[in-house]
Amino acid sequence: MSDDTLLDRRHRLLGAGAPLFYDRPLHLVKGEGARVWDSDGRVYLDAYNNVPHVGHCHPHVVEALADQAGRLNLSTRYLDERILDYGDALTATFADELSRVSLVCSGTEASELALRMARACTGNEGVIVTDFCYHGNSAVVAGLCTAFEMPEGIDPRVRTIRVPEADDDPAEAAAEVEAAIASMAEAGMKPAAIFFDTIFATEGMPAVPAGYVEQIVALTREAGGLYIADEVQPGLGRTGTGMWGHQLYDAVPDLVTLGKPLGNGHPLAAVVARPALIDDFANKAMYFNTFGGNPVSCAVGHAVLEVIEQEGLMENARKVGAYLHEGLLVLGNKHATIGAPRGRGFFTGVPFFADGDRERPAPDLTKAAVNTMRERGVLISRTGRHDHVLKIRPPMLFSAADADQLLAALDDTLDLLA
Amino acid sequence: MSDDTLLDRRHRLLGAGAPLFYDRPLHLVKGEGARVWDSDGRVYLDAYNNVPHVGHCHPHVVEALADQAGRLNLSTRYLDERILDYGDALTATFADELSRVSLVCSGTEASELALRMARACTGNEGVIVTDFCYHGNSAVVAGLCTAFEMPEGIDPRVRTIRVPEADDDPAEAAAEVEAAIASMAEAGMKPAAIFFDTIFATEGMPAVPAGYVEQIVALTREAGGLYIADEVQPGLGRTGTGMWGHQLYDAVPDLVTLGKPLGNGHPLAAVVARPALIDDFANKAMYFNTFGGNPVSCAVGHAVLEVIEQEGLMENARKVGAYLHEGLLVLGNKHATIGAPRGRGFFTGVPFFADGDRERPAPDLTKAAVNTMRERGVLISRTGRHDHVLKIRPPMLFSAADADQLLAALDDTLDLLA
Repeated sequence: MSDDTLLDRRHRLLGAGAPLFYDRPLHLVKGEGARVWDSDGRVYLDAYNNVPHVGHCHPHVVEALADQAGRLNLSTRYLDERILDYGDALTATFADELSRVSLVCSGTEASELALRMARACTGNEGVIVTDFCYHGNSAVVAGLCTAFEMPEGIDPRVRTIRVPEADDDPAEAAAEVEAAIASMAEAGMKPAAIFFDTIFATEGMPAVPAGYVEQIVALTREAGGLYIADEVQPGLGRTGTGMWGHQLYDAVPDLVTLGKPLGNGHPLAAVVARPALIDDFANKAMYFNTFGGNPVSCAVGHAVLEVIEQEGLMENARKVGAYLHEGLLVLGNKHATIGAPRGRGFFTGVPFFADGDRERPAPDLTKAAVNTMRERGVLISRTGRHDHVLKIRPPMLFSAADADQLLAALDDTLDLLA
Repeated sequence: MSDDTLLDRRHRLLGAGAPLFYDRPLHLVKGEGARVWDSDGRVYLDAYNNVPHVGHCHPHVVEALADQAGRLNLSTRYLDERILDYGDALTATFADELSRVSLVCSGTEASELALRMARACTGNEGVIVTDFCYHGNSAVVAGLCTAFEMPEGIDPRVRTIRVPEADDDPAEAAAEVEAAIASMAEAGMKPAAIFFDTIFATEGMPAVPAGYVEQIVALTREAGGLYIADEVQPGLGRTGTGMWGHQLYDAVPDLVTLGKPLGNGHPLAAVVARPALIDDFANKAMYFNTFGGNPVSCAVGHAVLEVIEQEGLMENARKVGAYLHEGLLVLGNKHATIGAPRGRGFFTGVPFFADGDRERPAPDLTKAAVNTMRERGVLISRTGRHDHVLKIRPPMLFSAADADQLLAALDDTLDLLA
């Protein structure tokens, strides 16, 4: 079937508004490791997809999925060892205080549950978020989205703080939390939580000043609010220096949301929490998640943890991520259109500028680069407030040779578009 | 590992508030067809679980899952035939007007999306629900839950109507919708939607008067609201007379939510909608669901539809459901403690009464019956406002011999508890 026919059928069935990547959409049929194949048999290096975290169709994960699906798949209203084995393995990667887990199906469900817990357990309503954030697609979570305009608008219980850059004054930046709390007080509210992605991915991956995160968490806690760490993007070793992004800072969260990469594509997500919060919420709400924590999801999640460990993927993210970073710095010196890379490990952003002017983001050029890279067999995308930052976020087994391929394609692309 | 040890580990990891079935929780390790096995090798007839819709671990479904998981699993931002083939097969079971689909991961996500669409597309905020309903576990959806107390309380934008019994006056019952709309108008609101489970499962499966549903839908539409049909419980042929519960009435919904049984345990759910709503919402909101509609989920969902068709499971639900209903009527004549069965097809409720008094629900007796049945190797549960209704909702391949086993165990149990 031709791609045009597929596109027609898709528009008829899903609507023309359902988002697709690239000017020429890709019809993919196969994935393996860090590579995917289109319907014409052409191979692409996948430097974008973090959902197939340990590599596309990893055999250990697929085997665990198929094996358990053939044995039993039921809700958590029965005793099962798999959820306990997986839960133990998962919570072992967190600080001792974070010993409880509630398994759900998506990052959105994790955000919802963490927010419901924070509000029910503190008795407060306010939520502090950052000024270009995205945490999921439900109504309440859309109501605290500052990155995209939503029909719901910003929830009146939400206050926004600006995320500082490395050379900003941390005290001045933290003062925005005090202002947010004061503004809530004027409206008769207190904060239930401060909620942010621990590497500020959608915000453009700024390297925040040392001490900043610790300070905003402390200020929120003084006012009675909890710290919810969103690990959907940085989690599972992607930073290369720890399993979770919040471990970059000296503050242990109260609630942690996990999503995308947890099941290597299988719909699995979680809230990891301090025990008192789980117990308190269970007393206050009848919460049950039909699919969350079923034995198949747990077998898959556990297999993903095993592969990360056995194949040393966190160390790979650190090593190859640093190598890629070096290469991007070299390209930045050669091409005036791109700035220094941001991020760490396997989450890298490369900003594009018009005429080499660091004050002028170049979204059109970034878009052209993404499409040119796709034609040259390398898949990436873009992000940021001005859509001018290349988003490089490969599967965790991305090798130095893969990085070389990406760098060479980007070098050619920048020459071509200069 | 002993069940006590499992329970200790579970309490430590998930908290003691995570719901479990039965006084003596069941440790299950295997499922096949309508049967499950515990860790001691004991076999149970599963007359409760609707999630393994076409039978536990159905080989055709497991094969589709494993096969696709080994090929490719990515988001819908790429072209893929599987979502189109599945979407076509799924929408073919609906009226022509309902030709668009948005795939998500859980019934909660489907409820969220349908409500967001209804509010964004009508510009109205009010929602009319029934007086003992449950539609999912997010904050907004908890805010319209009338079956359980939630920490959020009932959302001020929600109005509740009482669901009538077969012999109630339909005009009087429908007048509650007019009252709800009038109450919204007093608060400066209009209805965005009326939202109900089309067999009123949590409400206790009343056989509503003829014309009632058509009337409440018409009244809501006159006031500018949409009709959202919740098919999480009745869907996929369970009523035995049609694929969807709303097909029992002469009113085509605007939005339909699908959940639990869609993926036979795999986290798959959907909103089926009129095209104008999907297009309008896409213009108003950046909605994207990372896992929703991935090729593995679509392969699984398609395999479930194929099994229902190939094995004639809808007809089986009609035939064996009617046979079971007959048998329960006979038991009702023999045992004063139970009333006439309710529901249709493979969704049956049997009310328990104290001392044969139809005005006195007997929740303790119902609970005892559920636990005794479990000890006798038959799994069921209970539901309803007073927790006094046995909930019989087996996988769709439940046979007449299975029904005989259930009836014999219930007969013995009622003798024992009399």
